[in-house]
Amino acid sequence: VTARLPDARRTGFVSLVGAGPGDPDLLTAAALDRLRRADLVLYDALVPPALALLAGHAQRFCVGKRAGRPLVNQETVNALMIRAARRGQRVVRLKAGDPFVLGRGGEEALALQAAGVAFEVVPGVTAAIAAPGLAGIPVTHRGLASAFVVVSGHDPEAYGPILDGLPPNGLTIVALMALGASRAIGQRLLAKGWKGLTPAAVITAASTDRSSCWRGTLSELAAGPAAVADALGQVDPGTLVIGEVVALAAVLGGQAAGHLPSAGVGS
Amino acid sequence: VTARLPDARRTGFVSLVGAGPGDPDLLTAAALDRLRRADLVLYDALVPPALALLAGHAQRFCVGKRAGRPLVNQETVNALMIRAARRGQRVVRLKAGDPFVLGRGGEEALALQAAGVAFEVVPGVTAAIAAPGLAGIPVTHRGLASAFVVVSGHDPEAYGPILDGLPPNGLTIVALMALGASRAIGQRLLAKGWKGLTPAAVITAASTDRSSCWRGTLSELAAGPAAVADALGQVDPGTLVIGEVVALAAVLGGQAAGHLPSAGVGS
Repeated sequence: VTARLPDARRTGFVSLVGAGPGDPDLLTAAALDRLRRADLVLYDALVPPALALLAGHAQRFCVGKRAGRPLVNQETVNALMIRAARRGQRVVRLKAGDPFVLGRGGEEALALQAAGVAFEVVPGVTAAIAAPGLAGIPVTHRGLASAFVVVSGHDPEAYGPILDGLPPNGLTIVALMALGASRAIGQRLLAKGWKGLTPAAVITAASTDRSSCWRGTLSELAAGPAAVADALGQVDPGTLVIGEVVALAAVLGGQAAGHLPSAGVGS
Repeated sequence: VTARLPDARRTGFVSLVGAGPGDPDLLTAAALDRLRRADLVLYDALVPPALALLAGHAQRFCVGKRAGRPLVNQETVNALMIRAARRGQRVVRLKAGDPFVLGRGGEEALALQAAGVAFEVVPGVTAAIAAPGLAGIPVTHRGLASAFVVVSGHDPEAYGPILDGLPPNGLTIVALMALGASRAIGQRLLAKGWKGLTPAAVITAASTDRSSCWRGTLSELAAGPAAVADALGQVDPGTLVIGEVVALAAVLGGQAAGHLPSAGVGS
């Protein structure tokens, strides 16, 4: 690993950085490095502001969406990154989880490429794996699930054809941004022959102090949002997990509070 | 994030830690913290020894498998962790990628739970997302793939029924430990109606100086290992990626060398 970043005094540079699921201790060393050297940080609404504060001297702006309403539209985000980089600034575009998992990171990279702006992608810890993991749910486990699929809960036309073809055992389904879709997904899988007793979980605000985990069955999930959303509230992003691995949380769920002991990064 | 680790002088503790894909800069802050405070580090053969060296004063042992041959069997790994923890040691079980993605992390957690040993899981950056990402391939991208599935290339009886039901567009397939299975997976998908021109890539040793990326089509993949394995060698772990998103690497593949500029963690 001998390459060096270009000299920020001469040429601007954009880092598309994965922030992980929320806990500052789950930032990568590369993410911390880029934040500390940043001149400008543009962070998503789902990224806790405490993470953006780790950027020592940078200007910080919250962009992205909250509850479907964009604070700043995508074209503006692209324009802000490009303008700052052309002025020679070091820009961090801080995105929840991994930049390339359901976060429009690819579109932003294409915009930077088209504008001739140098950039890099810094992978992050995705909530699709960390949210269940911190709740004691391994997305794979020998004899229960040898694979997992990650979908977005936003669009039934996108997740529908994928879920419809999955065998009703042997893998784990993870749906991100799925609080609103949990009932529809539950009903869809039951209609395709999945057992009503298949374990299911919904984790909100994984890796933070506010995290909570609802566990039940596919039947309960399909019985309507009352079982899930009322118990958890809808303020935080929700990760839906369906499959036999969820049952392991009854044994491994000692971290069910869903956050790590502190390594002191954010304190 | 107010919890604290138990006092290592009184009670042992095991951290099942995700090491990420290989670059020390892709370790999380929590992983670095646990390594630096460890008394004993047990690391997989796929974890670069340089990462284990970040543990300042710990004893370090390479366990796990290389090319299918276990160096130390799973029962011995479990016994080593449990014995050290009972002696009051702070143990780090360092696993490639994320501990719960195809790495027997769940089995180790169950063994620790059964032995009454306190433990935690520290999620990591999985190669399933980072390997394609660093090669300029977003696993999801609006209009191309709204979902991705992760399978192991080890067992056709496990990945077969899952791949067979997937629609031939709209999602990305990622297969880990897949160099040996690339031909069989390619042929299987063609037989299910996937287009021969579907873009495919195989990335080896992602995020390290040795990383390389082969790109071609599903037809080429199915034409036999010569196209892939001869070009890349079989020493390093391989990540197979299939789907329209692979075409984006032609534009975004500026990081095709597959590693990040250094943040200085490993140097």
